[in-house]
Amino acid sequence: MAQFINTKEALVTEAIDGALRTAKGRLARLDGFPHIKVVVRAGWDKSKVALVSGGGSGHEPAHVGFIGKGMLTAAVCGDVFASPSVDAVLAGILAVTGPAGCLLIVKNYTGDRLNFGLAAERARAYGIKVSMVIVDDDIALPDLPQARGVAGTLFVHKIAGALAEEGANLDTVYQAAQQVIKQVASIGMSLDTCTVPGSPKEDRIAVGKAELGLGIHGESGVELVNFTTAQEAMKLVLERLKPHAGDGPKVALLNNLGGATPLEMVVLAEELAKSDMISDIRYLVGPAPMMTSLDMRGFSVSLLPVDDRELALMTAPVPMRDWPGCVELNAPAIQPIPDGLTPIKPIPSQEPATAAFVVQCCDLFIASETALNALDAQSGDGDTGSTLAGAARALKDAVDLLPLADVTQLYRAIGLELSQTMGGSSGVLLAIFFSATGDAISSGLSQVQALKAGLARVQEVGGAHPGDRTMIDALTPALDALPDGFVAAAKAARAGADHTADIVRAKAGRASYISEERLKGHNDPGAEAVARLFENLVSV
Amino acid sequence: MAQFINTKEALVTEAIDGALRTAKGRLARLDGFPHIKVVVRAGWDKSKVALVSGGGSGHEPAHVGFIGKGMLTAAVCGDVFASPSVDAVLAGILAVTGPAGCLLIVKNYTGDRLNFGLAAERARAYGIKVSMVIVDDDIALPDLPQARGVAGTLFVHKIAGALAEEGANLDTVYQAAQQVIKQVASIGMSLDTCTVPGSPKEDRIAVGKAELGLGIHGESGVELVNFTTAQEAMKLVLERLKPHAGDGPKVALLNNLGGATPLEMVVLAEELAKSDMISDIRYLVGPAPMMTSLDMRGFSVSLLPVDDRELALMTAPVPMRDWPGCVELNAPAIQPIPDGLTPIKPIPSQEPATAAFVVQCCDLFIASETALNALDAQSGDGDTGSTLAGAARALKDAVDLLPLADVTQLYRAIGLELSQTMGGSSGVLLAIFFSATGDAISSGLSQVQALKAGLARVQEVGGAHPGDRTMIDALTPALDALPDGFVAAAKAARAGADHTADIVRAKAGRASYISEERLKGHNDPGAEAVARLFENLVSV
Repeated sequence: MAQFINTKEALVTEAIDGALRTAKGRLARLDGFPHIKVVVRAGWDKSKVALVSGGGSGHEPAHVGFIGKGMLTAAVCGDVFASPSVDAVLAGILAVTGPAGCLLIVKNYTGDRLNFGLAAERARAYGIKVSMVIVDDDIALPDLPQARGVAGTLFVHKIAGALAEEGANLDTVYQAAQQVIKQVASIGMSLDTCTVPGSPKEDRIAVGKAELGLGIHGESGVELVNFTTAQEAMKLVLERLKPHAGDGPKVALLNNLGGATPLEMVVLAEELAKSDMISDIRYLVGPAPMMTSLDMRGFSVSLLPVDDRELALMTAPVPMRDWPGCVELNAPAIQPIPDGLTPIKPIPSQEPATAAFVVQCCDLFIASETALNALDAQSGDGDTGSTLAGAARALKDAVDLLPLADVTQLYRAIGLELSQTMGGSSGVLLAIFFSATGDAISSGLSQVQALKAGLARVQEVGGAHPGDRTMIDALTPALDALPDGFVAAAKAARAGADHTADIVRAKAGRASYISEERLKGHNDPGAEAVARLFENLVSV
Repeated sequence: MAQFINTKEALVTEAIDGALRTAKGRLARLDGFPHIKVVVRAGWDKSKVALVSGGGSGHEPAHVGFIGKGMLTAAVCGDVFASPSVDAVLAGILAVTGPAGCLLIVKNYTGDRLNFGLAAERARAYGIKVSMVIVDDDIALPDLPQARGVAGTLFVHKIAGALAEEGANLDTVYQAAQQVIKQVASIGMSLDTCTVPGSPKEDRIAVGKAELGLGIHGESGVELVNFTTAQEAMKLVLERLKPHAGDGPKVALLNNLGGATPLEMVVLAEELAKSDMISDIRYLVGPAPMMTSLDMRGFSVSLLPVDDRELALMTAPVPMRDWPGCVELNAPAIQPIPDGLTPIKPIPSQEPATAAFVVQCCDLFIASETALNALDAQSGDGDTGSTLAGAARALKDAVDLLPLADVTQLYRAIGLELSQTMGGSSGVLLAIFFSATGDAISSGLSQVQALKAGLARVQEVGGAHPGDRTMIDALTPALDALPDGFVAAAKAARAGADHTADIVRAKAGRASYISEERLKGHNDPGAEAVARLFENLVSV
């Protein structure tokens, strides 16, 4: 799978600069590219406890996206899935740590532990106060005492960050971080592995399967499970989290592992919110990509029981747009449907001549069904004739219910009838034509002018113009000629319809996708229908 | 490709409820599920012009994510890639429109035009003021006068939304929207097609290729191009946009089509910001998923030239987290690397006995290279011996440069030397061991106590404990016995090392991934190295 990157080597430095350019001046980086990839909070005065996190890249927006007031002070970035060097971590510590000291927030991977650990040692040799916490929130591997650090790390960033921003001292921040680490639990599920730049993709997970408990570096899951639905997936994940969930109100963090879509993530959020597997999940962070694993098509759920103090720290606002906030889960708010969806039924009235006229038109379309279908088969799915005939049959059946004596209402009623009985684009366009014509008559226009106004609205909504090989090519000249009588109108309609056989480049409607050869020599079925209608009106 | 959904039928309604649950009460929906899927701004008093948009789903966060103060008032959602019904649109209009009227913002697809168009007609029959604009920002199909509406629609939402929020009347909002539509241009590129729920995936784009100009419903691109790098991809996209770019300062909107990763998107942002293909791109919206196409692995760029007024409307803050904001593009801010990365070199001093001791230890490791490699081959990649021997050779070569007469500085210097010459986890852990021991001596501990303090730090950082089948299993008993002399220490180290052969379930280090059968009966190479060291010290 190709990726939108340049080289594997330049990937992380380019990504960092890309992030900095849109950071509104809130971020800066150290001048150590390519080896030292450290991003720091701009304008930081070192007056409070600094929070330094980081690790391998490929987890964006972690960690650069969480630098700022109320969360991290610096992020030390390694290459993709590779720990940053000791020098890089040390540079990060030295760049942001003042007399209040600094807390290193490290995810539990050997490389990160060692490199952050040695950097801490070297910083301490300068007399700098450094504490380190190791996040091990992943419950996927119950037998390994060294649980991995995954998306639960975000809770540590947020709570420790909010405390540090309040001016708490290093020990207080450290204790709060340890308290979060003790309580937080996470597990992930994925439908596919991730694509590591420069490495062939491992197609490990078969279709219909999902991995439960996989790591954020593409490590295999602890279990290959059958995948059926989002509901079952969330159920499995919550089942595993349940024994670790703790008591009291909880915050869930719903993390997109990179390749799940926004649509899938809200469906998963809905399942999480609806589930009663774990009681008292009252707040949600996300859904959002926070701790990703490149393009892994999966999600993780992290759970933290919170007291009032921790909740306040979790919900304290921060300016970073990658932090989705921690919001209370509510039932969906529902409003009644407004009145007016059921159109007012017109009051039937009698006018035998008009009824006969309508029936005559309907009969013409019913009689033309096969011929128009045959024409449509040249440019579409061959159903124009049937569509028109079906609508005509319905209209004919309803003719006694029409307000035949009131021409304004009659046009509107025909429009309404067509919108309910005639499928496809043509049904909507004809409904618009008749409705708009009725409106125009009610505003005082003559019938011919009103029909033209209706046609104008059809063009505005449908986007077709004369010459686009549509019914408009017959209807426009017919309406122009109508003041001279039906004969003139029929002649004009026929000329317009026949001209469509020479229009080989359709610019609107479905025929615009058809090759020129197939169109040449065949009238547009809509235009032909209009011509037949006017010719029929003359012939009687 | 499986997806985290339940059924195709319930997908959109579940997604809407999922979005509502985390909307902090800012959204509500109409009570018309499943046919009428309309989300409205909660608490809307109809005192200003309402903005109604929508269309097929599968473009999340569009359109529900952009409902709120300063953007949309309602979103009418169809099923995936299917236009909502006329009734649904009408319900949306009726639910939010007051005397100030309403603007329908429609993307240029036939179904949306028709259904929004007919709904407008029906609303007008109630005397409601409705205007409609049709967004056609896609420049991919230059021959079709009916350009599609894609991510540039977001500019219309934002600018019209900010104006409406200010209290502008319908005509002003309509004119501003039309002005944006006239000027905005978009094009997309993708490395893969999208997966429509319930349909087989079309594998249309070969590896190494990209489609330029594809639509947001998976329609084929106008051109299959070779894909090499993010830079070339952005160059192609900007080349196509250039003739449409207009004059003066511009805002670019960088949209994730759904399946590109956050990492790729910032790389693309960097390329967009660095490019001089189009002058005066001063502001950026994104990168973010805004108008997606399910899981399409692609991006789109939309460009809008803006005057001061439009820029103010673009940058007006809104509370929706899916709107990434419109920020000024800045060069990355760079800070100098802090002092202190280069450790202070110790001042060499002479002490022949200490030098001989160090050399003796080094020689032992050099002599044990093959044997330790063989042991390591049982549980790792067989290089423990070579790693130790390599470090020992380097340390032996540097022995005359060590501060041999100052034991505190000597430990620190050995730690530093090992951190620079010895690779792998063991190099870092030994560096931490010696550095922390040196620190402990300087704080007044005896040498044995200091060595234990160093070991404690190694355990904290490395996470290993006695019984985990590491060098700690030999070093811990050896240091405990050391006050009784080297013989006792050597005996204890040997017993500890030999015990590791019975530990078949390694809990730390690489051996933790190895099967029990392979470990049984073989000493851990690190523990063996420690035992050999102490035995060697006795034997001389």
